[in-house]
Amino acid sequence: MEILYYDILTLEVGIITLGAKSLSPAQFLVLGYIIVISIGTLLLSLPIATVNQQGLSLIDSLFTATSATAVTGLIVVNTSTYFTFFGQMVILLLIQIGGLGFMTTSTLFALLLGKKINLSERRILQEELNHFDLAGLIRLVRYVTLLTLGIEFIGAVLLFFKLIYKYPVPQAIFYSIFHSISAFCNAGFDLFGNSLANFTSDFYVNMVITSLFIIGGIGFAVIADLYRYRKFERFSLNTKLVLVTTITLILLGTVVIFILEYSNPATLKNLSLKGKLLGAYFQGVTPRTAGFNSIATGKMRSASLFFTIILMFIGASPGSTGGGLKTTTAGTLIAVVANLVRGEDEVILFKRNLARDIVYKALAVTIISLGWVIFITMILTITETANFLQVFFEAVSAYGTVGLSTGITGSLSTIGKIIIVLTMFLGRVGPLTMATAIGEKEQKGKIKYPEEKVLIG
Amino acid sequence: MEILYYDILTLEVGIITLGAKSLSPAQFLVLGYIIVISIGTLLLSLPIATVNQQGLSLIDSLFTATSATAVTGLIVVNTSTYFTFFGQMVILLLIQIGGLGFMTTSTLFALLLGKKINLSERRILQEELNHFDLAGLIRLVRYVTLLTLGIEFIGAVLLFFKLIYKYPVPQAIFYSIFHSISAFCNAGFDLFGNSLANFTSDFYVNMVITSLFIIGGIGFAVIADLYRYRKFERFSLNTKLVLVTTITLILLGTVVIFILEYSNPATLKNLSLKGKLLGAYFQGVTPRTAGFNSIATGKMRSASLFFTIILMFIGASPGSTGGGLKTTTAGTLIAVVANLVRGEDEVILFKRNLARDIVYKALAVTIISLGWVIFITMILTITETANFLQVFFEAVSAYGTVGLSTGITGSLSTIGKIIIVLTMFLGRVGPLTMATAIGEKEQKGKIKYPEEKVLIG
Ligand SMILES: [K+]
Ligand SMILES: [K+]
Repeated sequence: MEILYYDILTLEVGIITLGAKSLSPAQFLVLGYIIVISIGTLLLSLPIATVNQQGLSLIDSLFTATSATAVTGLIVVNTSTYFTFFGQMVILLLIQIGGLGFMTTSTLFALLLGKKINLSERRILQEELNHFDLAGLIRLVRYVTLLTLGIEFIGAVLLFFKLIYKYPVPQAIFYSIFHSISAFCNAGFDLFGNSLANFTSDFYVNMVITSLFIIGGIGFAVIADLYRYRKFERFSLNTKLVLVTTITLILLGTVVIFILEYSNPATLKNLSLKGKLLGAYFQGVTPRTAGFNSIATGKMRSASLFFTIILMFIGASPGSTGGGLKTTTAGTLIAVVANLVRGEDEVILFKRNLARDIVYKALAVTIISLGWVIFITMILTITETANFLQVFFEAVSAYGTVGLSTGITGSLSTIGKIIIVLTMFLGRVGPLTMATAIGEKEQKGKIKYPEEKVLIG
Repeated sequence: MEILYYDILTLEVGIITLGAKSLSPAQFLVLGYIIVISIGTLLLSLPIATVNQQGLSLIDSLFTATSATAVTGLIVVNTSTYFTFFGQMVILLLIQIGGLGFMTTSTLFALLLGKKINLSERRILQEELNHFDLAGLIRLVRYVTLLTLGIEFIGAVLLFFKLIYKYPVPQAIFYSIFHSISAFCNAGFDLFGNSLANFTSDFYVNMVITSLFIIGGIGFAVIADLYRYRKFERFSLNTKLVLVTTITLILLGTVVIFILEYSNPATLKNLSLKGKLLGAYFQGVTPRTAGFNSIATGKMRSASLFFTIILMFIGASPGSTGGGLKTTTAGTLIAVVANLVRGEDEVILFKRNLARDIVYKALAVTIISLGWVIFITMILTITETANFLQVFFEAVSAYGTVGLSTGITGSLSTIGKIIIVLTMFLGRVGPLTMATAIGEKEQKGKIKYPEEKVLIG
């Protein structure tokens, strides 16, 4: 297994050395993920990867490898019964690479091999880590890695105390590690076969798993700020915005799901009050973008599904293991509206002036994301037999790399699977990186055009 | 009938004189529409308004009056069979007031009465007409009125040449006037009982009706520019953007509906090629926001319904008789994305620099609109028995003041009707005017805050 890990990463380092000179950072990242997914697809299609010793079909291997690398968690076959230990390890490895980020993993390995990281490589890291400047990137890689492994270790130990009562020791150890990594990386893959449906009313497991994915989804920069400054006033604007939006979304998610599903016999109705609260809490936080579920997603009311779609679309915080539009993007949009209604002509947030290019970026991310999700939903309503809401849900879940599903993933058509694969990929790489990778940056001389207005609304 | 018109408008003038001093322009407009709708509700609930001589129930009167004033066209009872001539005239009057705009109608009447229009009244006009400055407003009112009546007259004459072969002369005259006004004002009300389903393959009627609502929906400022300058390069940025987005949406709408519905036996399949093209064209342009339909909306495929939802949400052009987000808003958003992908840090459009406050306004309108539509769709999925897509369609249709429906309007619950009434109202008044009317403009001393960034996407 170590040799496998070594092989993939040496290859990565080789590619970086080759490619970093001619490709833009964004193009490089896109290529990197394509290579990781290709290797994953190959490995999962090997006979030793599946219990039936026939390997997965190409499309299902591609789907699973993409879902793992994009830390999404949508599955076409049952991870626990279909894959061998080898297959499950490949998935876990892809999750860890995807969760840390392709370039972070590569840099880490280059560092371990004693290699120097040059400027072009730092530019790629900067694009991947969504960092403001080029300074301190290597320190950031070390910090991100140590933090990830440390939290995953603690998570595994905490899960082990629970799983030891259900499984033999070796299995309990593997399960603890697998689900801790899967939770922290917001991957949503599970080996229980039914996600966390066995633990709906289990306070301990609920808390460990949700803590892991909330911490993983809040972003490394925010964790650093929290650790370093401890007081809200001293945090960066980014950290303040992430904390306020994340807490708001958690509370809103829990309350709305609790109200909407309270009387639904297929989800919360037959649970105790404690079970109802835990179930609502879990289903309210998992769209940010863990993808585990503790109640049957497909049996929720239409209103809850639609509400979950919105939460999934917003997703996690930037520079984290989660996907989606990002909490800061949503926060920025709301801030623009609030300031405009108050008659402000600038965007003031926590006594800071939000830069114009940030607002434009937030707007662009939102429009590209909306456009893509609408486009593929239209196609899927034609290629799939499932109803509109199920298809819409699946599309947003893939784009936000969430992994929740109403249960239609396994019966998607081949075209449907390919669309979802592309969408998970786009969701992981991010619309802006993707757009920058495709759009050529023409460097014409700057022309100053006169300002003019148009009528709005 | 003239006395009725006179009564409503004298009342309006009285209110303006009273209210203009203490209310903000936005608050004043909101109040104005509430009063017009209240009078309409009262009149439609009178026994003489309905054929059964019992008048409409309060909720259905409110619904119909709001739908007419907000030029939406969603109906709970059949306009042609349920209402008397009196009832239909009340509806037509509300459509005309709503189409021209409450303040434009009031100003017009004040002018006819020889009254002077003071500064506070001009401010309200400016808010309603979405005009950049206070100069030339009265000339604009005269121009808007003459243009509207002129085009409606031509439309009625053209329709008369067709309808004379189907109906006795008095009825043909009334029907010609009614449908010309309803089309130009993008109201979508009809007296045929099944909208334009009898005319699916009728080239003449298709062209007259769509020309009326496209001209009505393109905005008075654009028509003036077209008339005055004739050459694209000389148009204002607003006119250029309206023309490009409108033409793009018409082409896109026609092509997509043609492809999606080509093989659908419930809509286009059994028509000749000419019928298919006309049907697709009509259904592709009616979301901008006419609300007539020539094929059965409710029988279109899910993909077409979803696509129509997007078109309805975008809607017509600003300063027109149509509703929705507006073509310029959508165009601005796309321009921001295109410029960002090209690596520009400013928004360049037709060699003009789009002002920052316009982009922020576009963003705010979009977010408020999305927020409202999502919110009411969630509520409607609980209160109504119709499926998600039908309910979503109805919500967006009401917000965009479009008036298309999958056929669920008549069987909405009372709560559902109230929500749709509020939504049509909000859609007509416009989210920004509404937000400004509610939000109090605190005029604190301007504090300059330092600029800071957040991570996006
Ligand atoms: K996930
Ligand atoms: K309409």
